[in-house]
Amino acid sequence: MEIKPLGDRVLVEVLEAEEMTRGGILLPDNAKEKPQQAKVVAVGKGKVADDGKVIAPEVKAGDIILFGKYSGTELKLDERELLMLREEDILGIIKK
Amino acid sequence: MEIKPLGDRVLVEVLEAEEMTRGGILLPDNAKEKPQQAKVVAVGKGKVADDGKVIAPEVKAGDIILFGKYSGTELKLDERELLMLREEDILGIIKK
Amino acid sequence: MEIKPLGDRVLVEVLEAEEMTRGGILLPDNAKEKPQQAKVVAVGKGKVADDGKVIAPEVKAGDIILFGKYSGTELKLDERELLMLREEDILGIIKK
Amino acid sequence: MEIKPLGDRVLVEVLEAEEMTRGGILLPDNAKEKPQQAKVVAVGKGKVADDGKVIAPEVKAGDIILFGKYSGTELKLDERELLMLREEDILGIIKK
Amino acid sequence: MEIKPLGDRVLVEVLEAEEMTRGGILLPDNAKEKPQQAKVVAVGKGKVADDGKVIAPEVKAGDIILFGKYSGTELKLDERELLMLREEDILGIIKK
Amino acid sequence: MEIKPLGDRVLVEVLEAEEMTRGGILLPDNAKEKPQQAKVVAVGKGKVADDGKVIAPEVKAGDIILFGKYSGTELKLDERELLMLREEDILGIIKK
Amino acid sequence: MEIKPLGDRVLVEVLEAEEMTRGGILLPDNAKEKPQQAKVVAVGKGKVADDGKVIAPEVKAGDIILFGKYSGTELKLDERELLMLREEDILGIIKK
Repeated sequence: MEIKPLGDRVLVEVLEAEEMTRGGILLPDNAKEKPQQAKVVAVGKGKVADDGKVIAPEVKAGDIILFGKYSGTELKLDERELLMLREEDILGIIKK
Repeated sequence: MEIKPLGDRVLVEVLEAEEMTRGGILLPDNAKEKPQQAKVVAVGKGKVADDGKVIAPEVKAGDIILFGKYSGTELKLDERELLMLREEDILGIIKK
Repeated sequence: MEIKPLGDRVLVEVLEAEEMTRGGILLPDNAKEKPQQAKVVAVGKGKVADDGKVIAPEVKAGDIILFGKYSGTELKLDERELLMLREEDILGIIKK
Repeated sequence: MEIKPLGDRVLVEVLEAEEMTRGGILLPDNAKEKPQQAKVVAVGKGKVADDGKVIAPEVKAGDIILFGKYSGTELKLDERELLMLREEDILGIIKK
Repeated sequence: MEIKPLGDRVLVEVLEAEEMTRGGILLPDNAKEKPQQAKVVAVGKGKVADDGKVIAPEVKAGDIILFGKYSGTELKLDERELLMLREEDILGIIKK
Repeated sequence: MEIKPLGDRVLVEVLEAEEMTRGGILLPDNAKEKPQQAKVVAVGKGKVADDGKVIAPEVKAGDIILFGKYSGTELKLDERELLMLREEDILGIIKK
Repeated sequence: MEIKPLGDRVLVEVLEAEEMTRGGILLPDNAKEKPQQAKVVAVGKGKVADDGKVIAPEVKAGDIILFGKYSGTELKLDERELLMLREEDILGIIKK
């Protein structure tokens, strides 16, 4: 079973905090808006512009991304904690 | 009797929670914004852009979709619980 | 005496609740935003886009439509209860 | 002395309630947003689009129009009660 | 010394109330939004559209205009009470 | 050391009130929104439109401008009181 | 390990206040909106316009920039205090 995100939406699997600190990023406790890491599971075809043109997303399945903590809609699929984001909510891609 | 949605609207039939868990998606009780599953009953012709161009919807009748719980307008037709959404409210399509 | 709606406006005659349930649609009492049925009396020429192009409306006089309960501006003409909507307020067309 | 409305503005003379009911339209006392009738005195050249194109107004001097009660800016000219509306505030034209 | 308004701004000199009533316009005391008269002193080159095109203003220096009372930014220049408006704030031009 | 403003930003040096009244403009104490004078220090390349086109600013370094008192971001550079405005915040250019 | 900002985002390393005053800019304590200095670490490809066109950013890695204090999202990477801004939040580039 699979979910195909619509438009500019991106389905991600949130990474645990321990996994994140091992990866080198530490998020300060007093940060106003704490970013989190996630792995991209599936991406929509992209944002549809007013003239019907589709703008391909910058992220792809497998990318590790940073996003703002309170973004998106939570859902669980086969015991995995997933989140449906908009590409707009993604701050950056982590390259290792 | 049939309802033809206007513009970018999509008429869906909400699926029961039991039916959803059997399908593999579990929605956490404490999720801020719980998505639900629904089956697409009818779709509008699509969003009309400012230049009059019609942008065809990504979903079609029969698709099983995920949408945010408080989206749309409820209506009952012949004892079926229906919801009129905008395509924008649809998070993704479930492929099985 | 007749009223010609301007732009994307649509003049409708609201149908009574009894008439609606006979037609097969039941609106739950606890619905947040209860849709109603109405018959289209007259339509404007359509929305005028920024480049002056007119986008023809999807509805026409005689259509039975669904709309959100608190939409539009009420007026009475020769004892008929009319409502001036925008096409945007119309959820769908009922085909029988 | 004359006033030339600017852009998409329309100068109208409000018609008295008695005159309106004689004309066949009755406005319910409990209507949220009561429309009124007025006679168009002068119209601007029309809305100027972002590309400089002028979109001619749908109404012309002499038309009897319906508008929402709290729209526009009141002014008196030679004892006549006038109102400066935007074309957007006009609901429809009354044809007799 | 002179002020050149920027973009779609219009510099005007407010006319006194007595001068206005002599001109034939009386503003009701209970009007929600009382318009005032002013004489145009200088105009900007016009609104700059997104594509860089400049849209020439409809008013010119010397025009007597009507504007909403609480519009614009007040300034005094050589004892004259001036107001910097946007063309958008101007309701109409008075032709005598 | 120098600051290059970004996009449609304009860096200005605020002129003292005494300097302003000598120049002929007096600002009423009860003005809602008191404009101030400033000298342009540096300008950005201009606003970037959606199609990537750059719209050159109307002001240039050395111009004396009028702006609304609470606009912009204050900063001090080598004891000079500077302000980073957007061109949009500038009301007009003072020509002497 | 590296972070690639998305779209019009810019990753910066905030400079300490002492370092800033040595550089010649003093920020008044009572400033409404205190700007800070930062060094650009990485930039996104630029803003994606509605027609899919990418607008290259004005800043590049290594630039020292000024930005409004409460902008962006804080994150720590290998003990460095970083901030993810949008290019829009950057007031100017400091040239020395």
